[in-house]
Amino acid sequence: MTNRITLFEVGPRDGLQNEKEIIDTSLKIELIERLVSSGIRRIEATSFVNPKWIPQLADAIDVLNGIRRKDGVVYSALVPNLKGLERAQQTGIKEIAVFMSASESHNKSNINKTIEETYPVLREVAETATAIGIKVRGYVSTAFGCPYEGDVPLSAVARVTEELLHMGVYEVSIGDTIGVGTPGQVKERFTSLIELFGKERLAGHFHDTRGTGLANVYAALEAGIRTFDSSVGGLGGCPYAPGASGNIATEDVLYMLHGMGMETGVKLEEVVEAGAFLEKILNRTLPSRVLQAMKTTCMEGESANE
Amino acid sequence: MTNRITLFEVGPRDGLQNEKEIIDTSLKIELIERLVSSGIRRIEATSFVNPKWIPQLADAIDVLNGIRRKDGVVYSALVPNLKGLERAQQTGIKEIAVFMSASESHNKSNINKTIEETYPVLREVAETATAIGIKVRGYVSTAFGCPYEGDVPLSAVARVTEELLHMGVYEVSIGDTIGVGTPGQVKERFTSLIELFGKERLAGHFHDTRGTGLANVYAALEAGIRTFDSSVGGLGGCPYAPGASGNIATEDVLYMLHGMGMETGVKLEEVVEAGAFLEKILNRTLPSRVLQAMKTTCMEGESANE
Repeated sequence: MTNRITLFEVGPRDGLQNEKEIIDTSLKIELIERLVSSGIRRIEATSFVNPKWIPQLADAIDVLNGIRRKDGVVYSALVPNLKGLERAQQTGIKEIAVFMSASESHNKSNINKTIEETYPVLREVAETATAIGIKVRGYVSTAFGCPYEGDVPLSAVARVTEELLHMGVYEVSIGDTIGVGTPGQVKERFTSLIELFGKERLAGHFHDTRGTGLANVYAALEAGIRTFDSSVGGLGGCPYAPGASGNIATEDVLYMLHGMGMETGVKLEEVVEAGAFLEKILNRTLPSRVLQAMKTTCMEGESANE
Repeated sequence: MTNRITLFEVGPRDGLQNEKEIIDTSLKIELIERLVSSGIRRIEATSFVNPKWIPQLADAIDVLNGIRRKDGVVYSALVPNLKGLERAQQTGIKEIAVFMSASESHNKSNINKTIEETYPVLREVAETATAIGIKVRGYVSTAFGCPYEGDVPLSAVARVTEELLHMGVYEVSIGDTIGVGTPGQVKERFTSLIELFGKERLAGHFHDTRGTGLANVYAALEAGIRTFDSSVGGLGGCPYAPGASGNIATEDVLYMLHGMGMETGVKLEEVVEAGAFLEKILNRTLPSRVLQAMKTTCMEGESANE
């Protein structure tokens, strides 16, 4: 296996967007800066979805403009349409992300458009952004199962992925939005998608809702995937209950990858400290297993037993 | 891959033994009977370790004698020495389990003997049990890392496994006692152990302390292992903090295995109901991800989205 893995941190966006209580912009900025200090080089900082829908991220411009940006770090943000792109441009951002679902009913419920109706909207965003030098990443949701439709055919995932790549998206993150995927399916799907599009244009986005998150990362690694999305503390991903898990935790993925001899360039101890900082902001325990196992030790300045 | 998997349920012993507040014998019996009803065919019901050390399981004889035993189900119990075996015999038990560690300092701390000193004690138990028709299973702890020594060489694991098999133990469960294992290591170790001893004499015992539990099950499956220990709700395994995880949860393993097309003979929905019952007994949320995702739905009699 190639040893180099890229982690794409989505906590500040995918994690925080579900939080009801509004968090100070300065705390969001500190969280992002801590994550970047740990060695993370790709991070989704916020979202330009209409603040009416996600009031928590209404401060998107302030967050991006408040960060002391570091060379070599890609700060990205979710952009749903041209209006969002206009706001994003006020921050000098170099990368954005567009999103849609592989299943019709999830796309409809999430974006309020059919899949066919979504393409021109995203194409407009992608082409406008590309023309002004902004790179565009893409997300395909419900790629391993849909809360409304159940199974989602691989052909639907391939179709949406292909459309996104044709718009100029440089990398498509294939998402198990509701955490129903299992490793056999993940390995199979990614093997097929890699044959179609090449592994350097694909990323894996897994949720740990049913405990299979890291098993699915491992299966995707075996298929050849080398870029993974994760969220500090395991925050986010619409958990349905306190203590439940959504996004796979950056800490947990790092622990596994490093144990497998993979290189990420990220210091696990510092991500654990960022996770502990986030727990203080939110005043609750986060789902990351490694965070729970390591945080006391790390906060005392020792490195945990690895 | 062969499709048939055997789950060995350890919750009533490995899970309950850490609980401080003494649970009614009748509730333990009901938990075991619910698990057996779900289709589980191998279950560790209790322990004959000196009740001075584990007061929670002081009712071992009553638990075993109180169960309405079902044909085709193996009810087992942990037995540390001849004295424990004598108590176990009062229950007409057909299988017991002996245990030791692959690392010297964990063995010393857990059993208060060196590894060499432990062999004759276990041999006496295994030979006496076998002579009276009781089958003997073995556990090797700290097989993927030790809390005191860190790395544990594969040769140490192989050595202890071989000794146990020579005593007449029919199957050795290789344990990641502190949940430090990662899938690369797991696949490698099990591949070697299978070469040495054959896959039908080995089982995998994983903890989810750092989120790698199911990834390790998947890696062990790839190596050829077909028997796994798990605990209803993910109870047990010395969790160091509330919300932290120890043993891999039976619910989570079942969800993954069934998603991979494996057959276990166990009904996931009924294990989820047993997990919800256990949460009521203990009056707290258990670490199983699937339990949290499914329990409401299942308790309402619907089957979850699989």
